[in-house]
Amino acid sequence: MSTTLKFTVLLLALGFCRGLLDNYIDEEETEAPDAQASKFGSLWPLPQKVQISEVSFKLTSSSFKIVDAKESSAGPSCSLLQDAYRRYYEYMFGSTKKLGLSKSRRTGPSELTELQVWITSPDSECDDYPSVTSDESCESLLFLILIRLIQISMSGLETFSQLLYEDEYGAKSVNATTISDFPRFAHRGILLDSSRHFLPIKVILANLETMAMNKFNVFHWHIVDDQSFPYLSRTFPQLSQQGAYHPYTHVYTPADVKMVIEFARLRGIRVIPEFDTPGHTQSWGKGQKDLLTPCYSGSKPSGTFGPINPILNTTYDFMNQFFKEISTVFPDAYVHLGGDEVDFTCPIQTFSSSWNSTGFKQDYSKLESFYIQRLLDIVTTTNKGYMIWQEVFDNGVKLKPDTVVHVWIGGGSNEEMEKVTAAGYTTILSAPWYLDLISYAQDWQKYYKVEPLNFNGTEEQKKLVIGGEACLWGEYVDATNLTPRLWPRASAVAERLWSAKDVTDINDAFNRLSMHRCRMVERGIPAEPLFSSYCPREYKGI
Amino acid sequence: MSTTLKFTVLLLALGFCRGLLDNYIDEEETEAPDAQASKFGSLWPLPQKVQISEVSFKLTSSSFKIVDAKESSAGPSCSLLQDAYRRYYEYMFGSTKKLGLSKSRRTGPSELTELQVWITSPDSECDDYPSVTSDESCESLLFLILIRLIQISMSGLETFSQLLYEDEYGAKSVNATTISDFPRFAHRGILLDSSRHFLPIKVILANLETMAMNKFNVFHWHIVDDQSFPYLSRTFPQLSQQGAYHPYTHVYTPADVKMVIEFARLRGIRVIPEFDTPGHTQSWGKGQKDLLTPCYSGSKPSGTFGPINPILNTTYDFMNQFFKEISTVFPDAYVHLGGDEVDFTCPIQTFSSSWNSTGFKQDYSKLESFYIQRLLDIVTTTNKGYMIWQEVFDNGVKLKPDTVVHVWIGGGSNEEMEKVTAAGYTTILSAPWYLDLISYAQDWQKYYKVEPLNFNGTEEQKKLVIGGEACLWGEYVDATNLTPRLWPRASAVAERLWSAKDVTDINDAFNRLSMHRCRMVERGIPAEPLFSSYCPREYKGI
Repeated sequence: MSTTLKFTVLLLALGFCRGLLDNYIDEEETEAPDAQASKFGSLWPLPQKVQISEVSFKLTSSSFKIVDAKESSAGPSCSLLQDAYRRYYEYMFGSTKKLGLSKSRRTGPSELTELQVWITSPDSECDDYPSVTSDESCESLLFLILIRLIQISMSGLETFSQLLYEDEYGAKSVNATTISDFPRFAHRGILLDSSRHFLPIKVILANLETMAMNKFNVFHWHIVDDQSFPYLSRTFPQLSQQGAYHPYTHVYTPADVKMVIEFARLRGIRVIPEFDTPGHTQSWGKGQKDLLTPCYSGSKPSGTFGPINPILNTTYDFMNQFFKEISTVFPDAYVHLGGDEVDFTCPIQTFSSSWNSTGFKQDYSKLESFYIQRLLDIVTTTNKGYMIWQEVFDNGVKLKPDTVVHVWIGGGSNEEMEKVTAAGYTTILSAPWYLDLISYAQDWQKYYKVEPLNFNGTEEQKKLVIGGEACLWGEYVDATNLTPRLWPRASAVAERLWSAKDVTDINDAFNRLSMHRCRMVERGIPAEPLFSSYCPREYKGI
Repeated sequence: MSTTLKFTVLLLALGFCRGLLDNYIDEEETEAPDAQASKFGSLWPLPQKVQISEVSFKLTSSSFKIVDAKESSAGPSCSLLQDAYRRYYEYMFGSTKKLGLSKSRRTGPSELTELQVWITSPDSECDDYPSVTSDESCESLLFLILIRLIQISMSGLETFSQLLYEDEYGAKSVNATTISDFPRFAHRGILLDSSRHFLPIKVILANLETMAMNKFNVFHWHIVDDQSFPYLSRTFPQLSQQGAYHPYTHVYTPADVKMVIEFARLRGIRVIPEFDTPGHTQSWGKGQKDLLTPCYSGSKPSGTFGPINPILNTTYDFMNQFFKEISTVFPDAYVHLGGDEVDFTCPIQTFSSSWNSTGFKQDYSKLESFYIQRLLDIVTTTNKGYMIWQEVFDNGVKLKPDTVVHVWIGGGSNEEMEKVTAAGYTTILSAPWYLDLISYAQDWQKYYKVEPLNFNGTEEQKKLVIGGEACLWGEYVDATNLTPRLWPRASAVAERLWSAKDVTDINDAFNRLSMHRCRMVERGIPAEPLFSSYCPREYKGI
């Protein structure tokens, strides 16, 4: 589905950070885009419509306020907004203290002193969680300066902060600007994998923060897999006690999970956990007896295990309890159930009576479908919708109409998108955006050039594509390198999913993205460089 | 040349960090090596001979001392050693304070309380700079516990620290071990590029620190290039004033350079600066009039510039003064003069009298040789040896017998090595070790499998290969991502250049390197993972 957002800010700024890119040298490498300031400054992702005037205003940290407009439905008890005001004030001015002497200072005629935020959402307490139907709209009404947020959304504040620049004397400035904006796709996600390497909470929070800077709104938490089970389940604590890399230092406690969800909520980000079955479950078997299928060598168990055992009733009892817990721990309306890459190389005990009773004999893929069908039914009873990887659809499992099919095979445009949407299912695309598959040079351009709707299909089919996700699988990333590897490469995906279809100018993107990446660096995020260049304020870490 | 080092430590330890890798899961990816503890623990690079006994000793932070042996030639005024003692004490025990109560504690029978360091070098003040002929030897004489360093070298202390492990109760332990060690190659370098991106001093120092952990002993500082000129020259300050990305925030002051050199010296690392000419010099032209060749469009200057202008006398006056300064600022006996990739696409003013007077007309490569020859003569008068990229040799420039030719073209084994050594020149290899050319999965294995002497040639020729360098060119790295991108990928090169030729077991290397990388992480270095795994203490940053 496609969310229509209206967002206008009367503001800002050409001449934006001039000089930042002046020192770029033309490279002998011909693929290097021309480095010049974009007429859209450092806006990223590019709003749907932008008009930047030449009229500039100054802002001072001592006078500038972000306040609730008096018409706003959000009360002072809306902690989400208060939190966002502080965050964006700090982004704009740093966390420096106001100088006492400027208190009595008169404000100048061309000074912007106030950003009024007008919320029209009925949720005045702002306690809701974001959802796929959240309207991230905002609209400006007055000249100096008001943002109207149709619902609580961070994107308007982020855009405002991106309009700030420093003039030649270092004064914070903003030009009068009209912006009319809405995201092209409602589902704009990042997949992180905390199983192949454990990701400390600090790393997850920093990347949620960066997602908000790029207007991503879904954190797809691939939380467990073969390698480890760091999710501490209240119902089955032995899963992480046995299956995590370490039962204390390498687990996510209930408090951790709660913190991640709240931190995300405050930034307009949904958290969709993935508990991938029946494959990718080696770590589950360590703490839960009989959950995995024993492999056989002749007539004897070989000591190794295959996927979740689909023929025991205990399996479904377990799943029932487990997903009941998951449905209460994770507030989002969706849970991702995986279902990809089931390994059929485990020889099962074909002659046991229990296997024969299933009637499947050696038809593994039928067995898999049998399992998945029952799992989907279980999850349906928890009142959650589900997302699944494309294989589940391919294998003909009966899906609820609101199922989201996640396409990951086949690179750029592909027939799978056509098939899934032709069958009437909502779809998200990840196939061209496996950011773990690194390569030399500016691979962000490859991600940027993808057109998600580039498949054969009717308009109705295209409307079923609600977005996509950039995936950073965890084989080769952990706390040491995840953040610079993800940013700004994922930013390319962010713009593709947010901006209009015709925003495809690689040169303009290069120039805006270079400045956007320096802004991320200035906000403390080690976003790596696109090419030979510098940031006025380099990263302070190592 | 090949340095013969003898190094024996009577020490340590099988059973080393057991459990660290126990939780590795066999991967479906077949290329993943088997994860098991190596019988050599976490030693990296592997010493030439190691015998680890089963006899273990405990160490406590309160009792353990690193002291000068009474026979040592190094006095207490050897600040280099004192600095190393502190550094390695902190690596071994953290920077935790001694507990007062353990002061009066008796030491147990199987406790190691002292590491005696016996220096036999005549340089008792330890003020020398390391050089290519430095003998990094050490030899142990007594059982519990003495390292004899033939000359001041950090490698013995590093090896000792790598022998420490924690037993099941977390007690620091070390097993009685005999090590006899020497590096296979004398020149083991890392090239960092501070021109395409400015590298803050903090980043350079952190990587020098990590180089010492990997027994690299040469920092090849590719300090300037087309993109920027961050070296602040006392003689020609306008070079960085005009040519740096920023004249204050993106330059290396004389104090910065001095600090880098001293920090490196304390770790047994030489600093060889590269001032690459005549190509790669666009940034030089900004602050030095007439230094670059003006390109022509027909009979008029086009406004762009080519390489250093070889036909003006002012060019050589400049180089004379500039390299006089360089020879005093950088103490190493060698300076790298570049000479690679000269761009011949700049049309020169072929009809001018000055060009015609050179007699070269349009033969650019002869002109280049003419320039280089004069430059080498200039540098020779400063009493420095020089290193040059292979093109200078290929172009038939007359070189001093002690010239080091740096081979960078052609990947793994190649004919260039054969040619250069056949001509009798000392050679170092970088061609297979361009670490900036990233690719998916475990590319460290590719670097590890290189055999530097795998070319046709006599024994005499092979002896001319004094080592190699891992190069991390700067197009795509800066402070945000350099360190995790370099380590532990460069560690693969470190072992290839230090250990015996037959140390080629990929499985064993994987297991030792996995532990070595966790040790780097524990020491605060964001060294990235080799594959799905965990470290007992994960990186604390983002």
